[in-house]
Amino acid sequence: MTDASTAERELGTTFMPRFDAQGLLIAIAVDSVTKDILMVAFMDAEALQKTRETGLAHFHSRSRGKLWLKGETSGHFLRVEQILVDCDQDALQLMVRPEGPACHTGARSCFYRSLDGDSLVKIAP
Amino acid sequence: MTDASTAERELGTTFMPRFDAQGLLIAIAVDSVTKDILMVAFMDAEALQKTRETGLAHFHSRSRGKLWLKGETSGHFLRVEQILVDCDQDALQLMVRPEGPACHTGARSCFYRSLDGDSLVKIAP
Repeated sequence: MTDASTAERELGTTFMPRFDAQGLLIAIAVDSVTKDILMVAFMDAEALQKTRETGLAHFHSRSRGKLWLKGETSGHFLRVEQILVDCDQDALQLMVRPEGPACHTGARSCFYRSLDGDSLVKIAP
Repeated sequence: MTDASTAERELGTTFMPRFDAQGLLIAIAVDSVTKDILMVAFMDAEALQKTRETGLAHFHSRSRGKLWLKGETSGHFLRVEQILVDCDQDALQLMVRPEGPACHTGARSCFYRSLDGDSLVKIAP
């Protein structure tokens, strides 16, 4: 499995984002100050390009099938300060400064519940 | 879009993991002490059940098409202390205590590179 391109992808300095069969990769937005994960979404090549061009997190909405500027309706943009890339380059970590709650429910983070036995308990406002 | 089941899924206390068309959801392993993201993988229902039963992170290997106990060959298990669930329940955050490097490259985290212009720079050992 470890050929030259795998080695370059995993250990090299070349950015070779690996989109899946649907043309998507995972993007995790993390608050650069608190290190809390704010949300998880998908990016296609267009969303990645727009994010890099503008410094504002863009994703690909699977439900709407189109480019999605996070905050385009709410004003709660995510300003991207740094992009980390994982070993096989199919996941990105966006270190962001959020301009409001990241979750559409109004929560600061989408991860506001914890699994406790078979139930969920709220851990954050 | 907001019907009773959506409201319950997003705001309620019922654990209703939402697997995608491939039967998978996203699982992000986070170091419970440093809050660094260690790795991202997928879980099917079996991997989720095994993780909850054993307290050790299990994933579904898409390349091998089967259950994967993280650390089964390396000994680098991820001990799960808490599971957070996102708003629409298609992503889990595992707060873990890692028993060694989480990345197969030997890095502590899979996110050891940062995008700098069009190149990747190493940010962690």
